[in-house]
Amino acid sequence: MKSAKDGACSTIGIMSETRAGTGSSPPAKPFLAPTYEGDFVLDEPLLLECGRALAGVTLHYAVYGRLNATKDNAVLVCHALTGSALVGSWWPEIFAPGAVLSLDHDFVICINMLGSCYGSTGPGSVNPETGSIYGPDFPLVSIRDNVRAQAKLLDSLGIRRLRLVLGGSIGGMQALDWAIYDPLRVQRALIIGVTPLSAMGLALNHLQRQAILRDPEWKGGRYRPQRPPRHGLAFARQIAMLSYKSAELFDERFGRKPNRNGEDPWDADGKEGGLGLIGGRFDIAGYLDHQGERFIDRFDANSYLAILRTMDIWDPQRGCTSAAEAFGGIRGRLSFIGISSDWLFPPQAVRDFAYTIRAAGVQADYREMTSAHGHDAFLAEQAELVRLLQ
Amino acid sequence: MKSAKDGACSTIGIMSETRAGTGSSPPAKPFLAPTYEGDFVLDEPLLLECGRALAGVTLHYAVYGRLNATKDNAVLVCHALTGSALVGSWWPEIFAPGAVLSLDHDFVICINMLGSCYGSTGPGSVNPETGSIYGPDFPLVSIRDNVRAQAKLLDSLGIRRLRLVLGGSIGGMQALDWAIYDPLRVQRALIIGVTPLSAMGLALNHLQRQAILRDPEWKGGRYRPQRPPRHGLAFARQIAMLSYKSAELFDERFGRKPNRNGEDPWDADGKEGGLGLIGGRFDIAGYLDHQGERFIDRFDANSYLAILRTMDIWDPQRGCTSAAEAFGGIRGRLSFIGISSDWLFPPQAVRDFAYTIRAAGVQADYREMTSAHGHDAFLAEQAELVRLLQ
Repeated sequence: MKSAKDGACSTIGIMSETRAGTGSSPPAKPFLAPTYEGDFVLDEPLLLECGRALAGVTLHYAVYGRLNATKDNAVLVCHALTGSALVGSWWPEIFAPGAVLSLDHDFVICINMLGSCYGSTGPGSVNPETGSIYGPDFPLVSIRDNVRAQAKLLDSLGIRRLRLVLGGSIGGMQALDWAIYDPLRVQRALIIGVTPLSAMGLALNHLQRQAILRDPEWKGGRYRPQRPPRHGLAFARQIAMLSYKSAELFDERFGRKPNRNGEDPWDADGKEGGLGLIGGRFDIAGYLDHQGERFIDRFDANSYLAILRTMDIWDPQRGCTSAAEAFGGIRGRLSFIGISSDWLFPPQAVRDFAYTIRAAGVQADYREMTSAHGHDAFLAEQAELVRLLQ
Repeated sequence: MKSAKDGACSTIGIMSETRAGTGSSPPAKPFLAPTYEGDFVLDEPLLLECGRALAGVTLHYAVYGRLNATKDNAVLVCHALTGSALVGSWWPEIFAPGAVLSLDHDFVICINMLGSCYGSTGPGSVNPETGSIYGPDFPLVSIRDNVRAQAKLLDSLGIRRLRLVLGGSIGGMQALDWAIYDPLRVQRALIIGVTPLSAMGLALNHLQRQAILRDPEWKGGRYRPQRPPRHGLAFARQIAMLSYKSAELFDERFGRKPNRNGEDPWDADGKEGGLGLIGGRFDIAGYLDHQGERFIDRFDANSYLAILRTMDIWDPQRGCTSAAEAFGGIRGRLSFIGISSDWLFPPQAVRDFAYTIRAAGVQADYREMTSAHGHDAFLAEQAELVRLLQ
């Protein structure tokens, strides 16, 4: 298991300013320690939507604050693709005084997704039926499978009401799916920067998947933990970073500047053994390479593949003849947030999605966050998100 | 040398509807044969901006129509990244009666870019100084180097006036650079869908470059022609295709449909030896894979790297203290075209670029093409482009 702390504040991918040549340190982020962090093991196999059963399922989770006597102060936070249960580490400003969550009043729980490498059962876990790690045999896990497993953990804690379920990106998929799956449990859901993946989103995930599969070290998913497909995973992360940020932010931060380490994109001698085919990097290229390098130390390639697929297949209207059939059972109040510069989940698409659900008779509103940070804004500009929610 | 005909109508990448499962053939494109197609060899080494000299430079070119007695009816077309000199094959509708070019009145010349694999000197050519192919030793060639080489060919034909220079994407970079380099020769320039690359554009090129370099078959650029880095080049093309098209077009054409060959993205058994990590593809993924496969039969990896770099480093304001210094010498009339759905070269950026140049005292106008086809629209929707230009 990778250390979730390594990934603090980098669920989707926070800008790092710590590259060689800057000389500046990243701003200190408030770090909020959980009240409790531990594992919950399901007492029977989880029957998955794909038809397979997952035995010995472990959910790694963290809680903040205390559950009150009436057990009606629980809030469930759902993390994004490469996040962890430690929401206090990657979303600390949500807990600021007067912000979205209150440690005085709320009992906040965050559960690591199935498939992840941050403590819950995933491709790196041992399959109790074979005694070996799952690797590529890890089954297809859906958003609904995650929600159903999470429900069993909440049941075990006696939580029958959720004041709020919230999340961004794939965390928002889970938040909405919770409202559909258990309408009476969810009073309110906050769904940030997400819809079912568009064709462009599916395309980006396909490219990320290819980046891993084309690394010879992937070995059909049966790589040794000591020798993972590092290049492929780093490359997948680089592709993802384009979709997490915006052209506007890249222009503002990097423009056409040469890489800050002094490389010269106009050099005649070139790099990598070639004289002219590959030159010194521009700053944006150095940034992307740096993001890729950082990522491979904190995430696992098979986990990445598993969760990409979980994201790909989520479509709550699939198999339904109408939006009313898909969403009409929701009883909670939904709030959707679009991000102005998000091109992975464009704000117009989030708004249209919210209005489709509202037209099905659900209480649903839409608000837009103005930010140049792209999809990542819900993590990179938490204070702005908090202002919008107040 | 690859066959340029294979690449007809695919300079940037035209949608193919010929994938397994469609049953439909692509619409027949009008094919216009050149009046002449041949090679021009520079009689002395070309001194490059990077400081190196390129000996024995060959320019492969095609002409359409006839040069008149006063030699003032010449039009120069500059092709895009993976295009060829055969403009009649990839841009035929520009020649339609009443369109932009007239074979009755114009003498149209199109010259293959240096670095390409379609006949002009590139990484696959033999270095006369060593007797071996250049491979990764091919030098850094700039847009200006191309323009200076092209000027020598025009000189040899006695062409001192260009009624029009035009091109899209990197072809537009050449068209503008012509107007800067030889102000008295260029009466008019038509620059479509291009500015110096933004940080996002540089990022996309960086990823494409990585896709090739990470293919073990690339071998530092010293691969044998029979064993090129096919996977890497196909992957680079897939990344490029995202930037050539638009999210809107992808949604309209592919949406969340499963791949047309019958694959099931929701399958439990998965693909590639894994049970659940990799599922059947969505249609957009099948499309991207198909585009990658088609491309490797018609282009060369080192040529791709060479031209990416040519594109990366183009910035006519570099080293200038003002736009007036960079552009003030232009005497011809410039027309810039932005494409509404282009996110590689967004229309606002093209417009701002045009207005910057106009503010430097140049005759420059801006028009916008409305199309869902993204950057590729100047090739995919030629009739629409012609309408805009009339």
